[in-house]
Amino acid sequence: MTARRWSEYRLRRRVNFYETDCAGIVHFSWFFRYLEEAEHAMWRAAGLSIASGAGGVGFPRVNASFDYHRPLRFEDEFDVVVRVAAIGQSSMRYDCEIFMGDVRIASGTTSMVCVVRDGAGLKAAPFPPDVISRFEVAPTAP
Amino acid sequence: MTARRWSEYRLRRRVNFYETDCAGIVHFSWFFRYLEEAEHAMWRAAGLSIASGAGGVGFPRVNASFDYHRPLRFEDEFDVVVRVAAIGQSSMRYDCEIFMGDVRIASGTTSMVCVVRDGAGLKAAPFPPDVISRFEVAPTAP
Amino acid sequence: MTARRWSEYRLRRRVNFYETDCAGIVHFSWFFRYLEEAEHAMWRAAGLSIASGAGGVGFPRVNASFDYHRPLRFEDEFDVVVRVAAIGQSSMRYDCEIFMGDVRIASGTTSMVCVVRDGAGLKAAPFPPDVISRFEVAPTAP
Amino acid sequence: MTARRWSEYRLRRRVNFYETDCAGIVHFSWFFRYLEEAEHAMWRAAGLSIASGAGGVGFPRVNASFDYHRPLRFEDEFDVVVRVAAIGQSSMRYDCEIFMGDVRIASGTTSMVCVVRDGAGLKAAPFPPDVISRFEVAPTAP
Repeated sequence: MTARRWSEYRLRRRVNFYETDCAGIVHFSWFFRYLEEAEHAMWRAAGLSIASGAGGVGFPRVNASFDYHRPLRFEDEFDVVVRVAAIGQSSMRYDCEIFMGDVRIASGTTSMVCVVRDGAGLKAAPFPPDVISRFEVAPTAP
Repeated sequence: MTARRWSEYRLRRRVNFYETDCAGIVHFSWFFRYLEEAEHAMWRAAGLSIASGAGGVGFPRVNASFDYHRPLRFEDEFDVVVRVAAIGQSSMRYDCEIFMGDVRIASGTTSMVCVVRDGAGLKAAPFPPDVISRFEVAPTAP
Repeated sequence: MTARRWSEYRLRRRVNFYETDCAGIVHFSWFFRYLEEAEHAMWRAAGLSIASGAGGVGFPRVNASFDYHRPLRFEDEFDVVVRVAAIGQSSMRYDCEIFMGDVRIASGTTSMVCVVRDGAGLKAAPFPPDVISRFEVAPTAP
Repeated sequence: MTARRWSEYRLRRRVNFYETDCAGIVHFSWFFRYLEEAEHAMWRAAGLSIASGAGGVGFPRVNASFDYHRPLRFEDEFDVVVRVAAIGQSSMRYDCEIFMGDVRIASGTTSMVCVVRDGAGLKAAPFPPDVISRFEVAPTAP
């Protein structure tokens, strides 16, 4: 019997007051946190925690970006859709789209790498098998 | 020769864009971070770091409060004045006032306690001598 | 027919990664945002929005405080219970308790005041009837 | 007499406690705020404010990205260098590099567009002359 592999997760979310700025819209830095919330929710759904530290591994981000199409405002309800875009031996990339209903609000991407301590620094390491076996690349969006 | 003891610290600060909310003013949660910035700056001035972990001690907060008198807005320049209000064997209380020029914007207070690990939990412990010797209670404001 | 009056709201929430600090626990400033999330959710449940601006009124905070009993950690699931503690003509006070299961994590309070613009400043104003009619003081906790 | 044109700004900054996460390093979302702090400081140095609203214009972001090379930790002192990378009639792009001493911590970029209200939405508009005249593209880094 094999457990389900995850390639996509959809998180329903509402804009909190403290996420807005004095231009009246969600501050652009928050979209990166929305992405991360959906990513971590997908890991939990897969029975994992990004912070388990099992096997001494960590998952720092290598890059992150967003294109902003439309603003979000206080109390707007929206969806954060995160998809596994690529998986390597020791790195993983997600794509992310934020929607309000059918309207695309923003599109982002982020990559992270699996690392272990190496003296005072860090070095790339293969994903633990119980991590890598729980994810697969999402089919290309139609 | 004895090192100077610290009882007060004044931090000059400017409101960042991301600290404002869609009411056009600094979100009330930020004042607690302003207080903490001034507290940590006083510790640095005293040659200490709240996060040194030396002797296995930590300093969790027991309480924190603010009274809000007037709003702060984007790019306002203000002063955060933190004062040592009380020192015990294993706890310390600060008062904090936030000013814009002569105008009092907010007044707060916070207490923290010195702790060490105790099995799965934490228990109060005396401050390390090199910490407690660097602070003294501020004279009462006139 | 009268609409239900609200005096208490319970919000289920999970700790996000970005809410933790390098001491490994939720930063104390976040509890004030948790309180506000539950407050605004209660207003929405009552058919209101704190940011509607209807009648030109706003609701700035006058004070806010928390006592911290135990830490929260990444991915902990917790409840934020906000209760209407007092209602005046132009001010309202909430109490807040944060629980993880039966364990009390933190207890807080905040007051806000109903204001209208008055020249360059603000002055207290009676709550609009459609706001005040939707809340009532919670019975004292047993 | 012509005022100086700005193409680069360097902001000295120290990591605050609340900017770190339970992995012990600055959360990746904060780099976008560091970039913005340096951007707004450059505008102030140029005698401008991003939030002036003069002429009814606003400056929403179109995209933002960072590549992360090394982590920042609590109390690390670092420099945020923002450079004008491109200026169009109604858009502007900045590059950003974050250094700790000589060590490159992160590299980012962001674009924003000058907009005016257009019914319920926004449309691109030329920069006001007093804005555009204060900036110029930075020479390519050696």
